Amino acid sequence: MLGNFSYHNPTKLYFGEDSLSNLKTELANYGKNILFVYGGGSIKKSGLYDEIITILNECGKNVAEVAGVMPNPTSDKLNEGVAIAREHKTDFILAVGGGSVCDFSKAVSVSVNCGDDPWEKYFIRFEEPTCEIVPVGCVLTMAGTGSEMNGGSVITNHEAKLKIGHVFGDDVMPKFSILNPRYTMTLPKYQMAAGIYDILNHICEQYFSGEDDNTSDYISEGLMKSLIHSSRIAVENPQDYEARSNIMWTATWALNTLVSRGKSEDWMVHMLGQAVGAYTDATHGMTLAAVSLPYYRYIMPYGLKKFARFATEVWGVSAEGKTDEQLANEGLFAMESWMKEIGLVMNISELGATEDMIEGIADATIILNGGYNVLDRDEIVQILKASM
Amino acid sequence: MLGNFSYHNPTKLYFGEDSLSNLKTELANYGKNILFVYGGGSIKKSGLYDEIITILNECGKNVAEVAGVMPNPTSDKLNEGVAIAREHKTDFILAVGGGSVCDFSKAVSVSVNCGDDPWEKYFIRFEEPTCEIVPVGCVLTMAGTGSEMNGGSVITNHEAKLKIGHVFGDDVMPKFSILNPRYTMTLPKYQMAAGIYDILNHICEQYFSGEDDNTSDYISEGLMKSLIHSSRIAVENPQDYEARSNIMWTATWALNTLVSRGKSEDWMVHMLGQAVGAYTDATHGMTLAAVSLPYYRYIMPYGLKKFARFATEVWGVSAEGKTDEQLANEGLFAMESWMKEIGLVMNISELGATEDMIEGIADATIILNGGYNVLDRDEIVQILKASM
Repeated sequence: MLGNFSYHNPTKLYFGEDSLSNLKTELANYGKNILFVYGGGSIKKSGLYDEIITILNECGKNVAEVAGVMPNPTSDKLNEGVAIAREHKTDFILAVGGGSVCDFSKAVSVSVNCGDDPWEKYFIRFEEPTCEIVPVGCVLTMAGTGSEMNGGSVITNHEAKLKIGHVFGDDVMPKFSILNPRYTMTLPKYQMAAGIYDILNHICEQYFSGEDDNTSDYISEGLMKSLIHSSRIAVENPQDYEARSNIMWTATWALNTLVSRGKSEDWMVHMLGQAVGAYTDATHGMTLAAVSLPYYRYIMPYGLKKFARFATEVWGVSAEGKTDEQLANEGLFAMESWMKEIGLVMNISELGATEDMIEGIADATIILNGGYNVLDRDEIVQILKASM
Repeated sequence: MLGNFSYHNPTKLYFGEDSLSNLKTELANYGKNILFVYGGGSIKKSGLYDEIITILNECGKNVAEVAGVMPNPTSDKLNEGVAIAREHKTDFILAVGGGSVCDFSKAVSVSVNCGDDPWEKYFIRFEEPTCEIVPVGCVLTMAGTGSEMNGGSVITNHEAKLKIGHVFGDDVMPKFSILNPRYTMTLPKYQMAAGIYDILNHICEQYFSGEDDNTSDYISEGLMKSLIHSSRIAVENPQDYEARSNIMWTATWALNTLVSRGKSEDWMVHMLGQAVGAYTDATHGMTLAAVSLPYYRYIMPYGLKKFARFATEVWGVSAEGKTDEQLANEGLFAMESWMKEIGLVMNISELGATEDMIEGIADATIILNGGYNVLDRDEIVQILKASM
């Protein structure tokens, strides 16, 4: 743990099958005007919508709704949400859904009292909120993004063909999040697998960077091992509560700032995946899966020791008589087998990307520092071609 | 992760060599009357006392001091601290020292505005605070107890020959803690080793319980591996900043409620060690070390699978061709070697316990549920005898 850093995560988590019973007590801490935000209507099918409405009524709240938040929430939808929130004089935003609904709600929360265009201010100019932030609470129905315990928000602008994330400070983190693993069980297997890979990749983005000896990397290895173990059980039997609960808990801790403390981070797989997402509107986790192996195989020689450690500590590859390079290769091979086993999409063509999009996707890829080697645009193009 | 639970840890952490620079900003959030609590004067030798006083003066604070908080803070000292805090109309308690100073400050914080006798109320009757709690902040000079990010407080009553801990809720947790690994470097090697074992044992108390598959156990394994790795470096060279920083960070996460989420816990080693401590006033971590192996060897057959897992996942014992029992034994053997390597005290005689104390120590040992087998008094006596 070298360098100076701080850690502060005030989000209160309620976990388990009965966790929704805490919603009423939490809502008592906030004002009357609630903005109820949700997605495509799966919560209506599952009955959760009715449960939430009943609780809101019992609390005597005054409710406005923003429905139809899409998997990659758009800047147009954000503007619509902000307008409804203003009109309603929103005291509190209740996000019920997956990471997209949480991300969207946080973007609304920093925009309601801000005169500026939110997309321009937060996602192009990367400014921090200076206005009053409307508090947000989450009821999570999908495990993956970690949005339930962080300040992150990813918004897509289709016109500009850009999908950009902004990680806000701890004052934008949800005040509370309710995590019931049962809610994740109605999700199609494709979405579950995409969520699982999103979790693993969040950890990898923080793990594959830096050379110093760091407790964070050991915590990351523990989280990855738990995830890999439980993912195999969940893919066999999506109704296995214990496996689904471990996956849900791992998702939260994979991206709530803990495992990045005291170290550098990479995030290039997300930059590549988000650019693919801006062009294809494909499921976030699948875009990450499809670009991962070409990226990691490209970057591996620059971070050989860490990739060798990944092989032995996460995948249980035996080190006996092997060079770091052999180990590193075997680790990525083990990861590839697991990715296929849980049903991930392994190339971007399958997600709708075509050869003629490559240059545009490369342009939309934000190049970040932090990884074992900083890519140039030609290398981005190479990796995208290798991902086809 | 079975069952229902919540997680909320609002303590803000500042970590690193420059972390004290955040004290001024934090103090600005609190009132004028500061109670400055510290221990035996090592902070005067190191110069930290002067640094703190300078900062407090620059902030225009009105300071009263409680000096001389001992390694096992007593109920008499607690009463003295409460009286000074009341007299001073304390707005904020600044604890500068190790776990004892933090524990003590938290005990004062819940007692200042409470009419009752603190020892009776919190440590005998285990009541929760109903009065206003004075906020606490910590500047940590020793790694071990985790007191910097939890609600725990252990107080000793010499008259009653009892050393008892109370884990308070999140409103008693420090508002902020400043963790500078450099501050831990002036500590004698004996104290450093004791702190390291305290950390490992905190994790073990949460790990060796329950049969369900749980992400918390994977995080625990990561923390233990990091600790064991860094402890070997620190014992060779106590001035190794990286190792000392990993140890300090691990200490915080070993006991801030994270690794106990969704599972049962044991805590019998602490109950035994605290009873030994009440009789000998020995260093906390050493009392744990001295009773650990007899306890774990006794309990092992009841939790064989977990002890086998401990061997392979934490100590890297090869599982090939071995029974769970063989593995479990080898794991404890590896732990024993490591304990000797880092210089721990391996029996209670060396800490001043004598044969004639055994019955009294057994009487002072609180028997808890949660472990793989609940001990009776005869078994406690057996374990204490084996610890001589």
